[in-house]
Amino acid sequence: MALPKTLPGFREFYPEAMAVRRFLFNVWRESALAFGFQEYDGPVLEPLELYTRKSGDEIEAQLFSFTDKGGREVALRPEMTPTVCRLVGAKANALKRPIKWFSIAEFYRYERMQKGRGRSFFQFNADIFGEAGPEAEVELIALLVQCLRRFGLSEADVYIRLSDRDLWLLYLEEYGFSPEETADVLSAVDKLEKLGDAAFRGYEEKHGALAPEKREAIQALFGVRGFEALAALVQSLGNERLQARLAQWRQLLDGLEAMGVGSFVEVDLGVVRGLSYYTGFVFEAFDRKGDLRAIAGGGRYNDLVRRYGGPDLPAVGFAIGDMTFQLLLEARGLLPTMVQAADVYAIIGGPAERQKALRVVADLRMAGVRAEYPLRQVGFGKQFKLADQSGARLALIFGEDEVQRGVVKLRDLRSGEEEDVELARAVAAVRERLHGG
Amino acid sequence: MALPKTLPGFREFYPEAMAVRRFLFNVWRESALAFGFQEYDGPVLEPLELYTRKSGDEIEAQLFSFTDKGGREVALRPEMTPTVCRLVGAKANALKRPIKWFSIAEFYRYERMQKGRGRSFFQFNADIFGEAGPEAEVELIALLVQCLRRFGLSEADVYIRLSDRDLWLLYLEEYGFSPEETADVLSAVDKLEKLGDAAFRGYEEKHGALAPEKREAIQALFGVRGFEALAALVQSLGNERLQARLAQWRQLLDGLEAMGVGSFVEVDLGVVRGLSYYTGFVFEAFDRKGDLRAIAGGGRYNDLVRRYGGPDLPAVGFAIGDMTFQLLLEARGLLPTMVQAADVYAIIGGPAERQKALRVVADLRMAGVRAEYPLRQVGFGKQFKLADQSGARLALIFGEDEVQRGVVKLRDLRSGEEEDVELARAVAAVRERLHGG
Repeated sequence: MALPKTLPGFREFYPEAMAVRRFLFNVWRESALAFGFQEYDGPVLEPLELYTRKSGDEIEAQLFSFTDKGGREVALRPEMTPTVCRLVGAKANALKRPIKWFSIAEFYRYERMQKGRGRSFFQFNADIFGEAGPEAEVELIALLVQCLRRFGLSEADVYIRLSDRDLWLLYLEEYGFSPEETADVLSAVDKLEKLGDAAFRGYEEKHGALAPEKREAIQALFGVRGFEALAALVQSLGNERLQARLAQWRQLLDGLEAMGVGSFVEVDLGVVRGLSYYTGFVFEAFDRKGDLRAIAGGGRYNDLVRRYGGPDLPAVGFAIGDMTFQLLLEARGLLPTMVQAADVYAIIGGPAERQKALRVVADLRMAGVRAEYPLRQVGFGKQFKLADQSGARLALIFGEDEVQRGVVKLRDLRSGEEEDVELARAVAAVRERLHGG
Repeated sequence: MALPKTLPGFREFYPEAMAVRRFLFNVWRESALAFGFQEYDGPVLEPLELYTRKSGDEIEAQLFSFTDKGGREVALRPEMTPTVCRLVGAKANALKRPIKWFSIAEFYRYERMQKGRGRSFFQFNADIFGEAGPEAEVELIALLVQCLRRFGLSEADVYIRLSDRDLWLLYLEEYGFSPEETADVLSAVDKLEKLGDAAFRGYEEKHGALAPEKREAIQALFGVRGFEALAALVQSLGNERLQARLAQWRQLLDGLEAMGVGSFVEVDLGVVRGLSYYTGFVFEAFDRKGDLRAIAGGGRYNDLVRRYGGPDLPAVGFAIGDMTFQLLLEARGLLPTMVQAADVYAIIGGPAERQKALRVVADLRMAGVRAEYPLRQVGFGKQFKLADQSGARLALIFGEDEVQRGVVKLRDLRSGEEEDVELARAVAAVRERLHGG
């Protein structure tokens, strides 16, 4: 009677896969810590209302939601943003600003499966709360780049499309769009790359035909690539608020240059991001070859903490998903072979020597050394094979003759070099060899 | 409009709490790696049948279960054992034996909340598959002790009650209990400590009154403390299979002595563990003061992989829960204060110096140094305060004068000592100071 299989879209992590997952998480964590971000986490299960409350979100249809045994409507978390807004909002006055937080957590969405997308996936989330200026974006985009570079990815592999919903709003206002219309224009722009002109169908059904000069204006901003082109377009309009926004752009780009990450960033107004809660700069990272989904995405969401019942707190954040990221590293040959080797293998003459050997193994492990030994007593030849398979650099040979003399033979399994070491000095001798002390 | 709160029994991890969680997990992970265990993980959501299939399990009533959007009956995982049996069972022939695996994962049970028990909790699980002899128990119990000792817990704080369901079965057989009766006797014994004689009520309703000599026999084994007492009781019976089992006990206890963990272990036949899938040695760890729930528990479950459709594969494992464990460390004052301090803080003269400063900060971070700086330009005095608050050991002062001379002032914030360092050498100088190079 076979066991029920793993659910579609969920993953099993055998040790090889787990080693890769740990490698990704460790590099992300070290990067965030180097930037002074602090780690947090929230519950895997949340009240359903946490996700249904936020308008303009496609996530709702994709939730793993149910009624728990206490009659509560609950859902597995599909993203971190609502949770982190609640956590920060609840203690906003007690937390030292700017609040720089990160998390590495799993999320769940019931959606059609495709390459690089499962029903469960991990995300690295980083956010800064309490800083309204583009200095926060500089810090976050620099962190995103470090999260790429630390794996060996360069600007030849990955680029970040940088855009601005704030500038889009001011621009559409300049062209006479009402606030309700701008939201629907941005929804259309979000799909323009994929659908072409058909992207405006929904807008036109709701608001009537789009005048040709308005459509041209949208296409003009949508097509902007590079800061020069953006500055030229904005300056042609002579709108003061747009000019002021351009100054923020300069500050952001100068900061990114100073941080040494400018070469990763491309000004590209073709991006607006699907989620309507973004209020300013937005960005998405892609691989240059362009055959994968977005690797990371983020932006400013200054209204969300307040909309969630917290104080008025500016915020900007991004997330990297693990699945597409891992596909990219694999495609570029940047995933190292994960070998979990022992440091030292104990070869044991017989039952009489076992006692002494186990004690040394225990002491080695307590000192943090990865020490293995044959659980069952087997012949010497077989033990040397096991030592070899374990990947250990060193062997400690507890032969009858050695143990009687109060020593153990320490052998370097690469060079074949060996020496007798007093039993009491075995741990120290192994550590010296391993750490080249 | 306040956000819906966290569900009862679920936890939020603000950075301080998260630092404690990481500390626990890191020590457990390092201990397991030192023992040559490999890390794995499974899905958070599993088919409901994975948990309802296994008989004799109280877990069923406590599941977070529901029907997903594809009509599948699913449940949040309440424990790791069924998942790890499936993973190992599916690849049993490809995995090198003994299979030594561990995981650190979250589990979910809908149950009444009490101290040290939530509806979501983490467990460290370690298991050995493919070794039938007590050498596997020696290795596992030694790992459990290392997981305690590495935090500073000693045999004065914690002890492990070691018992044996196999011996219990042989003993009850010797006293004429039928196989159906023994299962119910063991259920009663599991509750005997808590309920006293009332524990037998269920048994007697089903099988009729318990003869006084049988009840006495049960009480005799139940009261056994220490190996001498166990050996005396077994030898008085003259049963060969019980004698053979005693030899296994000797092997186990000798191994634990050799591993240097004998002082943590107490032979105590009063433990049988609630789960009926255990087939041999079982053990539970408690604090000596006795005011907390069990810290860890485990045992042998040789039939489970086969019962789950895999091959015949002997297995033994244990789990430590994070909540009781953390309460114990807190009670013993063994949780260090978690400080996430910066290594170096950059103090920036003005906008003109910011460019150079950010570049050095970026290079420091790329080198793994925790470098912070004021996101916003503020006065020198305020920046020194921020540097202090960051906990940094060093400050890099990018004054106008210094930057013009191509240098930066490196100050030790403890000693007040300072020196000018060439900008190009700033990263190297900081690293030398931090690592005492």
